[in-house]
Amino acid sequence: MDPTIESLTRSLRAFAAEREWAQFHSPKNLACALSVEAAELLEHFQWLTEEQSRQLTPEQLAAVGQEAADVLLYLLQLADQLGIDLAEAAREKIEVNARKYPASLVRGSSRKYTER
Amino acid sequence: MDPTIESLTRSLRAFAAEREWAQFHSPKNLACALSVEAAELLEHFQWLTEEQSRQLTPEQLAAVGQEAADVLLYLLQLADQLGIDLAEAAREKIEVNARKYPASLVRGSSRKYTER
Amino acid sequence: MDPTIESLTRSLRAFAAEREWAQFHSPKNLACALSVEAAELLEHFQWLTEEQSRQLTPEQLAAVGQEAADVLLYLLQLADQLGIDLAEAAREKIEVNARKYPASLVRGSSRKYTER
Amino acid sequence: MDPTIESLTRSLRAFAAEREWAQFHSPKNLACALSVEAAELLEHFQWLTEEQSRQLTPEQLAAVGQEAADVLLYLLQLADQLGIDLAEAAREKIEVNARKYPASLVRGSSRKYTER
Repeated sequence: MDPTIESLTRSLRAFAAEREWAQFHSPKNLACALSVEAAELLEHFQWLTEEQSRQLTPEQLAAVGQEAADVLLYLLQLADQLGIDLAEAAREKIEVNARKYPASLVRGSSRKYTER
Repeated sequence: MDPTIESLTRSLRAFAAEREWAQFHSPKNLACALSVEAAELLEHFQWLTEEQSRQLTPEQLAAVGQEAADVLLYLLQLADQLGIDLAEAAREKIEVNARKYPASLVRGSSRKYTER
Repeated sequence: MDPTIESLTRSLRAFAAEREWAQFHSPKNLACALSVEAAELLEHFQWLTEEQSRQLTPEQLAAVGQEAADVLLYLLQLADQLGIDLAEAAREKIEVNARKYPASLVRGSSRKYTER
Repeated sequence: MDPTIESLTRSLRAFAAEREWAQFHSPKNLACALSVEAAELLEHFQWLTEEQSRQLTPEQLAAVGQEAADVLLYLLQLADQLGIDLAEAAREKIEVNARKYPASLVRGSSRKYTER
């Protein structure tokens, strides 16, 4: 397993154990929390134009960074509960997507997403 | 930066560049995609009991692993677009949470979440 | 159109017009806001057991009611922008679901959802 | 209660009863399903520009209309389970928002949302 993922996962386990929160951390609840945090991240962008979203102020960027961290922390805990090797799953998914969306066919088109 | 995160991020950049998809990958759009993928992950759990969510079949587990990978891949791309160091942000967030939720005060209670 | 939906929609149009917010209310942005509000509603339930979710305190219920209202208000504005007759679409969807999930085949099983 | 909301709610109750699905329809699970459906709606918009989102094709519009119906149907079932009068909650929320965002102060600005 990746050392950073492993180290973060160990910290999160200790954190939850000290607080006796493992009882709340069923995969279902963690999946809920992950969705909630992803939406909190989205909230920062909902009224921005795409252009504005590329030019965040330092304050906006700091806030978005914290929400992104929350998403990662719940994702790591969910993967830990389920025994999923996230880095490996991510590498496999990139390969799957490479076969699914050949560059020669989808270049410059967003249709590959919307018409799958 | 963490080597795995760096390597995945590099793969994702190349992947998007070959397909000329960078134009679609504004932070706003990536935040939308992240929320959508987090919800696709949640979809697998929505009718399960918490107990059932701890005992997924191999098929369910494989499907959940792919959705978890999708979440990670969009999160990495969003962080890359915004110049956020995800691993560092995650470490900081764990420290913030440790101060916010002292073990002695919140042990065994889920109220720390709901009453924040 | 249903009178309540029509009256709420008219109020929302006037509300946005007085504030010159129509410029922010593209269907895309409203869809983002709808997802964000649905997640804020979910946040109230994420650490509860299903049983607890059936026995909310009056304070929890009031908070959930406000989030549910937010979801409805963004849904109405999105439908208004797109010219969708929500009540009619809902009636059609119930009929589609009735054909898709015959009672005799799916009784007592949540698999109809997860295996579709 | 509003006649359309009442009639749709009655249909949904009968639908769930015939299939013995009430057991799955805890408020927590319905809140999950609501979030999932809102994200499925968002999925149609995630790679579109705001401008494109105002000019959907008939096919896109039909698909979005069905997702919007799904959102409404889960919202109605959640409100029904919790005894929430949605139309009344929506009217109250519009009044709350009118006080919270005076037109004279927020005209033409999306900051009222992001800085609340």
